[in-house]
Parts: sequence; C-alpha cells; structure tokens
Amino acid sequence: MSKGSVVLAYSGGLDTSCILVWLKEQGYDVIAFLANIGQHEDFDAARKKAEKLGAKKVLIEDLRSEFVQEFIWPALQANAVYEDRYLLGTSIARPCIARRQVQIARSEGAQYVSHGATGKGNDQIRFELTCYALYPHVAPWSMDANLMHISYESGILENPKNHAPSDLYQMTKNPEDSPNEPDVLEIDFAKGVPVKVTHVKEGKSKDTALEIFCYLNEIGGKHGVGRIDIVENRFIGMKSRGIYETPGGTILLHAHLDIETFTMDREVRKIKQSLGIKLSELIYNGFWYSPECEFVRHCIDKSQENVEGRVQLSVFKGQVYILGRESPKSLYDEELVSMDVQGDYDPCDASGFIRINAVRLREHNRLQGAAQKKH
Amino acid sequence: MSKGSVVLAYSGGLDTSCILVWLKEQGYDVIAFLANIGQHEDFDAARKKAEKLGAKKVLIEDLRSEFVQEFIWPALQANAVYEDRYLLGTSIARPCIARRQVQIARSEGAQYVSHGATGKGNDQIRFELTCYALYPHVAPWSMDANLMHISYESGILENPKNHAPSDLYQMTKNPEDSPNEPDVLEIDFAKGVPVKVTHVKEGKSKDTALEIFCYLNEIGGKHGVGRIDIVENRFIGMKSRGIYETPGGTILLHAHLDIETFTMDREVRKIKQSLGIKLSELIYNGFWYSPECEFVRHCIDKSQENVEGRVQLSVFKGQVYILGRESPKSLYDEELVSMDVQGDYDPCDASGFIRINAVRLREHNRLQGAAQKKH
Amino acid sequence: MSKGSVVLAYSGGLDTSCILVWLKEQGYDVIAFLANIGQHEDFDAARKKAEKLGAKKVLIEDLRSEFVQEFIWPALQANAVYEDRYLLGTSIARPCIARRQVQIARSEGAQYVSHGATGKGNDQIRFELTCYALYPHVAPWSMDANLMHISYESGILENPKNHAPSDLYQMTKNPEDSPNEPDVLEIDFAKGVPVKVTHVKEGKSKDTALEIFCYLNEIGGKHGVGRIDIVENRFIGMKSRGIYETPGGTILLHAHLDIETFTMDREVRKIKQSLGIKLSELIYNGFWYSPECEFVRHCIDKSQENVEGRVQLSVFKGQVYILGRESPKSLYDEELVSMDVQGDYDPCDASGFIRINAVRLREHNRLQGAAQKKH
Amino acid sequence: MSKGSVVLAYSGGLDTSCILVWLKEQGYDVIAFLANIGQHEDFDAARKKAEKLGAKKVLIEDLRSEFVQEFIWPALQANAVYEDRYLLGTSIARPCIARRQVQIARSEGAQYVSHGATGKGNDQIRFELTCYALYPHVAPWSMDANLMHISYESGILENPKNHAPSDLYQMTKNPEDSPNEPDVLEIDFAKGVPVKVTHVKEGKSKDTALEIFCYLNEIGGKHGVGRIDIVENRFIGMKSRGIYETPGGTILLHAHLDIETFTMDREVRKIKQSLGIKLSELIYNGFWYSPECEFVRHCIDKSQENVEGRVQLSVFKGQVYILGRESPKSLYDEELVSMDVQGDYDPCDASGFIRINAVRLREHNRLQGAAQKKH
Repeated sequence: MSKGSVVLAYSGGLDTSCILVWLKEQGYDVIAFLANIGQHEDFDAARKKAEKLGAKKVLIEDLRSEFVQEFIWPALQANAVYEDRYLLGTSIARPCIARRQVQIARSEGAQYVSHGATGKGNDQIRFELTCYALYPHVAPWSMDANLMHISYESGILENPKNHAPSDLYQMTKNPEDSPNEPDVLEIDFAKGVPVKVTHVKEGKSKDTALEIFCYLNEIGGKHGVGRIDIVENRFIGMKSRGIYETPGGTILLHAHLDIETFTMDREVRKIKQSLGIKLSELIYNGFWYSPECEFVRHCIDKSQENVEGRVQLSVFKGQVYILGRESPKSLYDEELVSMDVQGDYDPCDASGFIRINAVRLREHNRLQGAAQKKH
Repeated sequence: MSKGSVVLAYSGGLDTSCILVWLKEQGYDVIAFLANIGQHEDFDAARKKAEKLGAKKVLIEDLRSEFVQEFIWPALQANAVYEDRYLLGTSIARPCIARRQVQIARSEGAQYVSHGATGKGNDQIRFELTCYALYPHVAPWSMDANLMHISYESGILENPKNHAPSDLYQMTKNPEDSPNEPDVLEIDFAKGVPVKVTHVKEGKSKDTALEIFCYLNEIGGKHGVGRIDIVENRFIGMKSRGIYETPGGTILLHAHLDIETFTMDREVRKIKQSLGIKLSELIYNGFWYSPECEFVRHCIDKSQENVEGRVQLSVFKGQVYILGRESPKSLYDEELVSMDVQGDYDPCDASGFIRINAVRLREHNRLQGAAQKKH
Repeated sequence: MSKGSVVLAYSGGLDTSCILVWLKEQGYDVIAFLANIGQHEDFDAARKKAEKLGAKKVLIEDLRSEFVQEFIWPALQANAVYEDRYLLGTSIARPCIARRQVQIARSEGAQYVSHGATGKGNDQIRFELTCYALYPHVAPWSMDANLMHISYESGILENPKNHAPSDLYQMTKNPEDSPNEPDVLEIDFAKGVPVKVTHVKEGKSKDTALEIFCYLNEIGGKHGVGRIDIVENRFIGMKSRGIYETPGGTILLHAHLDIETFTMDREVRKIKQSLGIKLSELIYNGFWYSPECEFVRHCIDKSQENVEGRVQLSVFKGQVYILGRESPKSLYDEELVSMDVQGDYDPCDASGFIRINAVRLREHNRLQGAAQKKH
Repeated sequence: MSKGSVVLAYSGGLDTSCILVWLKEQGYDVIAFLANIGQHEDFDAARKKAEKLGAKKVLIEDLRSEFVQEFIWPALQANAVYEDRYLLGTSIARPCIARRQVQIARSEGAQYVSHGATGKGNDQIRFELTCYALYPHVAPWSMDANLMHISYESGILENPKNHAPSDLYQMTKNPEDSPNEPDVLEIDFAKGVPVKVTHVKEGKSKDTALEIFCYLNEIGGKHGVGRIDIVENRFIGMKSRGIYETPGGTILLHAHLDIETFTMDREVRKIKQSLGIKLSELIYNGFWYSPECEFVRHCIDKSQENVEGRVQLSVFKGQVYILGRESPKSLYDEELVSMDVQGDYDPCDASGFIRINAVRLREHNRLQGAAQKKH
C-alpha cells in the first residue's frame, strides 16, 4: 500500500538519489522532477538513474526562459546584491523550481513535495544529515549550478582562511589564462531589462531573454568575470563561506547600474536603492512569494519605466569596464552640465542654495560655540 | 588700501592662478594656501608662481597623514560609495583642506577664504566662469588629484557616449599593459581600519596610515585597479559624467567589506549599511561638518569595534580577489556551519522556524484564495 | 502699456491685496484667482475687493472636492504626519491651488503667476517683507485656513514658551467647553480611503469625499479634536513654532491607522511606513509634483488595495477612541490568535523559531564571553 | 531525587501557580521569583501562596527603579512606539525581569529558568495550554501589569469588533468621569530623559526617576490618559488585538517629542527617527539583549546629548496638550524665524535655493513633455 505520492525535486546527484530511495523505502510513490534551469547536466542519464532507483514517473522540464524573465530580470532591475556582494544565483532559482514543483503536485494529485537542494541550512538539512549518514563518501563540497551561477561551499572551504582550489571553478576561466584582448559589447535596455546584446566587432547580436543571458555567460566566462569568495550571513543566524561565479549576471549588474543612474531621477534612485536592498534580503531568505516581496517587486518595476538606452562596455581579465552610454530617456543634459556654456543655469542660484543649506549648520555652530564659551 | 586678506586654496593650476590675480586686482591681500594631499605637484614651482603672481604669503602644508586618518578611514569604515560606485575621492578631500584653510584664516587674521577647486557645480562655478571668460584656452577636461584618487570631467567627456581617451589615466596602468602575475597582499585591520599591509611573497610591510595607503596606491596602480566611468547625480540636481581612478581605495573597500561581514553581526550590518549609504550622500553633498554627519560617523565608528582580523587578497589586471580571511573576533563558527558535523544545532528547530515564518504567508494566501473564489 | 498678465493667488486678505496693488503699479494686468478650498471666506466680498483694487479679472473656483480626493486622500493613505505630529494641512493645499493657477495662466495666456500664501519661508517671504514694510499694522499672527485645517504662527507665538491665546482657535471648540457626551461614528474604508461615515445613534450618514470630510470636521470641531502646538523644522533649515487645528484629519488618521494595521501584512506595513514618512517630507517641502513623490504615491496607493473595512470610534473631549473594527479582508484570524483553542498552530514550532533566532545571539555572547575572559 | 532547580518567574496568579505545581510534580525544586515592577499585587499573600504550593524558596525583589531608568528611559529617548501606537509596556518589562531571573539562577546554582508570562504567543503558549487543560475555569482575558502599563487581551476581546468592557481599565479613569479641570505640569529634561516634574499650581515636584514616573502615572490616570485599543502584528506572524493603558508613558512621549524636536537638528532627527522605529521592533520582538539593539541604543543615546529643557503641558480628559517649551540648547532662533525682522537671512537666497531644487524637476518635465509630444 502506498502512503501517497511525493514530487521530489531531483537533481541526478547523490543527495536527491539518496532521498528518492529513502522515500520509496518509507512507502511513498516518487515522482522525480528535474528542472532544467541551465545547469550542465546529462538529463537522459539522470532520467535513467531515477527510473532505475524506482521513480514512478520522471518529469524533465526546461524552465530556463521563465527563470530568466520572471526571476532574474526583476532581481536585475533591483540591482539585487545580498550584503553588497552576492548576486543571489541560488536563492533566485528556488522559487522558480518550487513553483513548478507545486503545480506538478497539484496536477498529479501528489500530497507531498520534497527537495534536497543546497539551500542555506533550512529544511534540507534533515535530508542531508540522514543521507550523509547512509552514504559516507560525500563530495568534498556541495555545489549548486544553474544558468545564473555556480556556488560552492562546505568541505575545505569551511575554514574561511583556506584559499579556494584553483580547479574549483567551472563556469569561468581563470583570469590569468583568459584572452589578452577584451570583447566589447553593447547592451540595449528597455524598462530596466536587457532586450538586445551586440558584439561590436563581430556584429553578432542576441535578442531573447534566454539567448542574451546565455551569451553573456559565455563572454563573461571566457574572460573570468564574476568570481567572488565571501562570508555571508545565513537567515538562520550563522555565518557561512561561499564561493560563487556569476559571469553573465555580473556584466548585467554593471550595465544596469549604469543605464539606471543615467536615466533615473536622483531621489527616485535613493528610494529605489533601499527597496532593492530589501528585495535582496527577501530573495536570500526565501520570501519571493510573500506579500512584501510582491509589493517591493511592484514598486521596483514601476521605477524602471524610463530605464531605457544602450550601454557600451568591455569585458577583460575578470573585469567589466563601462565605456559609454546613450538614451532617448536620459535626464542627462549636456548643455546644462557643461562648464564651457552657461546655458539655463544661473550660478547665483547656487550661492543662495548653499547659504540656505547652511542656515541649519550655522545655528548648530552658534549653539556649540555658546556651549564652549561656558566651559 | 587693502580691502582685507583672503586665504586662497591655491592649486598652482590655471583656475586658482587666475583667481589670485583677480583678487589682487580687486584690492585684496592674498595668502596662497597649498595643501599637499598627495597630488603630484611641483610644490616649489607652485610657490614661486604664487609669489610671482603677487601672493603676500605662500603656505604649503602636508595634510596627507590627517587626510588618510581623519577622513579616508571613516569613509572606509562606512564602505562609503556614492550611488553604488563612486568612492568619493574628491568629496572627502574638501573638508580636510577647508578645515585647515579656515584655521589659517583665523591665525592670520584673514577675513575671507576663497577656493577654485573642481567641485560639483557649487560655489566655484562663479569663479570658473569668470576665469574661463578671461582665459579662453581652457584645458579639455578638468581634473582633481589627491592621494585617494584622480577624477576627470568636462570637455569631450561631457558627451556620455564618448569613450574616455586611453591616455587620460595617470594613477593606474591600463590593465591590458599591467603585469601578467598577481601580487598577493595581507591586510590587517583593527577597529575597521587597516593597521598593516604585507606583501606575502616579498615579505615587505607597511604599518602607518599614510604608508599603507600609498603602498596600496602603488600596487593597485601597477595592476590597473579602480578605474570607473560613471554618470552621477550632483547635489544641485543635474547629472554629470565622471571618470575616476582610485587604486588603493578600491583594494581597501574590498578588504574592509570582507573583514566586516566576517566579524559583524548580521542585523548590526543591515543598520550600519543604511548609515553608510547616508554618509556617502553627506560626504558627496559637502556636509562632512554637519550635526547629522557627526552623528552618523559616531554611530559607524561604534559599529567597527570588533572589525578586526586579516584578509588575504590578490591584485591582478584591474581586479581584487579575496582569497581568505581570519579573525580573533569572528562570529564565524566552523563547527556550527559544517554540514558534516551536527554540533550544537538541532535541524528540527529549523522546521519550527520555517513554519512560524510561514504563519503570515499562509494567512495571506488564505485571504487571497477566498477573494479569488468569489470572482 | 501692460508688462503682461499675472495670475495672482488671491486670498482676500491683507497680504495678497497688497501684492495686487503693487503688481498693478508695476504695470501688470492682474487676474485674481481665489481658490475655495474650504476656508471660511466671504467670496462675494473678496471679489468686490479685488475688482475695486484693480484686478482685470476675478476667478473664484471651488476646488474642495478635488482637494479632498486628489490630495488629502493620498496623504491619508500614507498616514502622512510630518515629524510625528503635523498633519500637513497647509502643505497639502499648495499643490492643489498651484496646479489650477498654472492651468488658468495657460488658458488666459498669462506669463506670470504670483502668490502670497503663508508657506514655510520660501518664495513668499520676499512679497511679505515688502508688504509688511508698506503696511506696518500687520496682524499679530499669520493664519492659513482650508477645509483640512487652520494654522497659526508668528507674532507672540514666536516665543516658543508663550501659551497660545485661548481665543485663537476657530475650527475647534475648547475641550473644556465641549459636550459631555461622546459621538460614536462608523467609518467605512475601501482601498484605504473613507467611503462612508455614519453617526451610529442618529443614523445619519455621508458618502461623498467632500461631505465625509466636512462632516468629520464638524464632529471633530464640536469635540475639540486635533489641536497641536509644535516646533517644526522648516525646509530652509530653521525651526518654527506652529499651532494647528485639524479636526476631521485627526479622526481619519486614527481610523485609517486602525483599519490599515488590521488588514495589511506586517512586513508590507513596515516598508509602507517608511514610504509614508518620506511622503510627509516631500509634501512638507513642496515636492508634490516631483518624480520621487509620484513614485512614492504610486507605491503607497498599491499598498492600500486591501485596506477595506469598518472602524467604530468615539469622539470626546479632544480625543478619538477606537472601539472596534471589522473587515472582509482582514488578516486577523480569531481562531489562530485564540489562547483557548489550539487551532492550526503547533506551539513546538515557536520553540524552534526562538532557538533559531537565538543562534546569532549565542554566537555573539560566546565571543563576548571569550573577550571578557582574556581581561 | 530532585531533577534540579528551576527559577520560576512567579506572578502569584493562576498560570504560574499551575506551573509551579506542575514543575514540582515533574521532580524539580522550584525557586519562585517575584519581580516587583510596579504591578498592584499583595506580595505577602503571593509569598505565602508560593510557599504553600511547594516552592523551595521565594524571592521577592523590587526592580522598579532599574526598570524605569535602564529600560523605560532608553525607550522614551527613542520615542519607541510599535506600529505607530503601542508604547511597548509589556515588551520592555520582559528583559528587565529575565535579566534578574538569570542572575538568580546563576547565584542559586539553578539549571533552569521558567516563566508563564503573557507574551506574544511565544514560548509560554505551551505552559498555558497545559495549564488551561488542567484548570478549565480560566479568566476571560489575560492581563499584564507593571508600573508602565496594563495590557488586556484574549477572551471576548478576541473578536476585534467587540468593544472593551467599560470596567476593564484599572490604571486610568474613564475620561467621561475624570475631573473637569486640567492639571498643568512642567517637565524638565536632560540628555533626553526627565529629571524633574512640577505641578505648576500646587508647586509640588518630583526628581527621581521612579517618583517622576509614578507621579505621571497618577496624574495621567486621574485624567484618563493613554488608553488604546489596537490590532497589532505579533512577531510570530499573526495579528492580535490588545487594549493598553499607559498614562505616565503617554505624557512623557508627548513631552519628549516636543523637547526633542525643539533641540535636535532636523537631519539628525530623521536618522534618529528611523533608528527609533527599529528599536521599537527590536523591543517588541524580544531582542533587547542583541548586538543590534545594543548598537541602536548606543546611537540613540548619542543623539540625546542636547535634548535638554522644560516643557509645559496640560493633562485633561484623556489628552495631553503641549503649552510651551524653553531650552538653553535650543536650535530655535526667535530673531531668525520672525517675519517682522529680517535678521541674518537674505530672502534672495531662498529664490536660489528653490531654483536649484527645481533643476531636477524641470529636467524631468522636459523629458516627459518630449515623450508626450511623440504620442
């Protein structure tokens, strides 16, 4: 007698294979669900393995386009970076996979969903500890790959002083071995998301979300862009060391920051910046599907209405260099800014502006002076 | 009859030379004050020039140590970056120079102070426009140099689409021509500021504020670190394009971010991060000497009490790579974080934690479900 | 020969009458524009006075409905209170009047607009000082009235220690003389704005924006609600003492706060609260028509989608007491919250939740303990 | 054989009496600890009851002075109000009691601490449910009293529509029955905390922290000040209805807000306001002893350096009316603010100030105009 059906987010790897077997032993029917979110994986081999381990059904689905458009793009609009450095590649993939997993559970009439993904010490820890107990030959580090990034943690990396092994990285070339000539790209944005990328010299261009992102991964990877080694604060309150490589995401972050500052009002930008920091925390902590995250995403999306234009940049030896930008919606006014032309700007106004800003400071100093005289 | 004395912040360049002459013509005695904040300058030549142009007195003072310790260090503690990218090299030098200038005015009995520095379109514009009118052969771009950075703006850079000329940069090598081998450094921090830098291979080390900063400028410059090309929002409300090179500051920002996240509590970090953003705006807008800036600096300083430890990093082809870190004050607990060891952490607690976090989300979904059933 | 036409925001009072005459003397045609925003005014008398003083045209327009719906309601949705106390009655009327004034200027082909309203030391100061110089017998305090509030400043009030004279207030009864029995009201909200107010005992109700607001002014005024005496920080950097009476606005603020907290998710509320504080500053400083204010208003409006329901409250002796509330969109779950029923809530989860929240605190204490042992 | 000793935070009431018995039955030695934090309690009777129920030891301690000085004062400095309304009377007492309880456990060599206090649905729920199961005749609502406030929840109050019974309140008179004449008080502040309160008419004054607070409770209670009925968001994610009466705390909040705005710089105030909101959340959620709360308290304390002066106010029929204020440290400058005297303020500066503030807005409108022409 089956205890019911479980949709298992299956990776093809050791952890989830172990969970699959364990669930079957406990009396559940297992539907293995393998989401293609851009990881390098032999999906045929994974299917065969899952079937061999006893999965009742194996579903492999390509979620790459929706991952880029519905999850990565909103994060990009927000310049979402956790604790100033981490581009959230693992965190942002979770709600995408989980959403589909829940849909499958509904349509298949399954009562349970299960996962074994490398998260940040949340639910999966129970699975992993059980699993590690049964399969002692664990990998030296856990790894999470998708089209946005690859992350590494555990094993020798747990000592934060140890350097990452040089053969760790898989998405990016070592900058020491990368080409000695830059690639120059032009990225066109509309409403804060990239709509076209062009290789200036080769004239090649891409214009769908998935192709743009994959092409930027290719160029970024070739030049060793987007490697970081950080210690971060997990939601559950402990610090954790992580190594990430996010080539395409890093190029886009630089380009988006540039076109956004070029086209967005200064004060809107300040408010939006704090909403972006909030969004980063929400994504990191797993709150993509929450009222506050829906609210923040809506607000950020609104802020992107005029974020439109073209950024030219060069990619070289692990770095992204912005070279120039243009936009039909820019608030940049060449005549106004020029120091050679007076334009529609009266320098006397600046004097008044400064003196009024100083009213408060002078009062403060007057008071402090009075206090010091007494002593 | 003299109209009184003016202390002029003299740079030796065209703009302030012009002001010097103009002030004399208006009937003022001019005390030329030349602050050495690390710019490359022939100070003897400047002195002679000022004397020749009629300065009553020429004062050249070395402010480099106090610039690093009293201005750059607090900005570093704050990770102060304006609009996510600009490290504030020009802005942070202004209060340092102006403070000394005012002290000189007091001790010399001068009634006026005057400056012609490249700011962000504030007071100086009046001087500059007058000056440009008299001396039409202006340089193609204006430049501001100090030991923290060099900035460039105006001229052909005013079209934000134009690339910066390749011969523009003076502090940093072009990464294409920089060495093919990285330099590996160790930086020791105490209370959030660097107290020692060591070149791992060469064994060389520096341990005073000024020497540390200059040495990091040298290494960063050699590897082309810290070049940016941005459009920024000036205080007076216009957008402006700027090119900056900040080699040492960029290395320190990376290292400080790393040791800070390693040693600082997550929630303190969040609060401190928003104070750091605030400080960046205050510095950029010229409010270093204001009650709010004093308050924010005090708070940030407090947050740095435990920011102590050593960061190892590599500098290569325009990039800074963090390699590892260690600290006697770290909140990082290798045993706790390990996935191989259970330690003092009960996985069941995570389940409860997640379920309680979900109480609010489930209520929200219940309500939305109810609303959708009605339609 | 006329120098052109000026649309003058005419109040009928001394200041703007003086400006009218002065403008005519300078050679301008003056179109006197008198906006009815709910102030107590003899509009016929004002018209005659303006004509007599030489206005070429007098336009009196009833802006009360649009003032309530397009300006007061968004401020209410935001719980907009400047510096924790001031309900922004003067500030919020300015953009409403100015918008219509500019429309009139356009349609009448006038080149200039002029005003003399009591603001916070901005443009009008020039007019006022000139005017005061010509008419030395100025009133002891300046006053600004509209249907939202009446404000008082200047004169003997400028010494912040002096009590406000007891005969100052015009919109509200002295609570010492107000009725000895409360009025109990029910206010219905939809999307964060009131759609109906009902007097529970009398059964009387109002359901248009203007009628609701005027009725709440009447009830609030009768019971002496909404008087404050504060020192506030003006945009131009000085502190200023103001006395305000805002009867209807105060009742609505209490009711809106209540229904909002009842229906809005906790985390959305936190983000919205900081946006509301921002909006207050923007309104106070005169930035209603700015990109950031449009952005913030849009975000706040979005947050109000589910702010719907009925609040019952009592108004008595200067106070508003919330008595109860109900909503079809409430996130309040009586069964869940009950301590008598276990419901769908497992107390063990709370233990896990607390222990996970304590992980970070224990690490912090471990470190501090280690530090203390050393000393 | 005893399983060890437990220090139980004993209230003398049903819940903790039940826990005491249960702990004894489980084999523990119970040390009953009764903290006097100002609740109305017959401490002798409680001692006898605890002894009779089998407590091995009963400790009754007066924590009132340290409660006021070390916990209420910092909250007051922050203007700490949770979700715009709740003054945190319960939350702020918890760390005060718990701190002493842990000290006792240490000095008595007890291994466990236990509590049964009305919190916000955290740990204690387990105790309560067990207890309610054994003693079915529970009170209709739970209540928490200390010298700061009394709170009520549960029972018929759980339906948020129900009015609170008129005989519920114990600390405050019904404003309908309160005196028909106000009391006028003067409160002197130094470093943001009250140092003296004077009854103007009677000449009576108090000048220790505990006496000041108790006297304000007396006056506030007499006039029915500080009653609120709110729905609030608990930390564990559910909404909860609470009735609170906080007479003295409410008077102090009004007075502190007034003297603070009078003496604090505008921009410091803004930053401090957001820190105060943060502190409110931390206190509410139980994080008094956390690195972030220590940090925030330190920063807020710093902001209070100049918050000094005297506020005169009247207390009447549930309301607190500020009448005037004075301070040796005020940033208020009567001459500067006066509209009758020009003083050291040039109205032309305001024009420049406004025009510079408008640079950004004009650019925005230019762009929008261009966009609209296209459509």
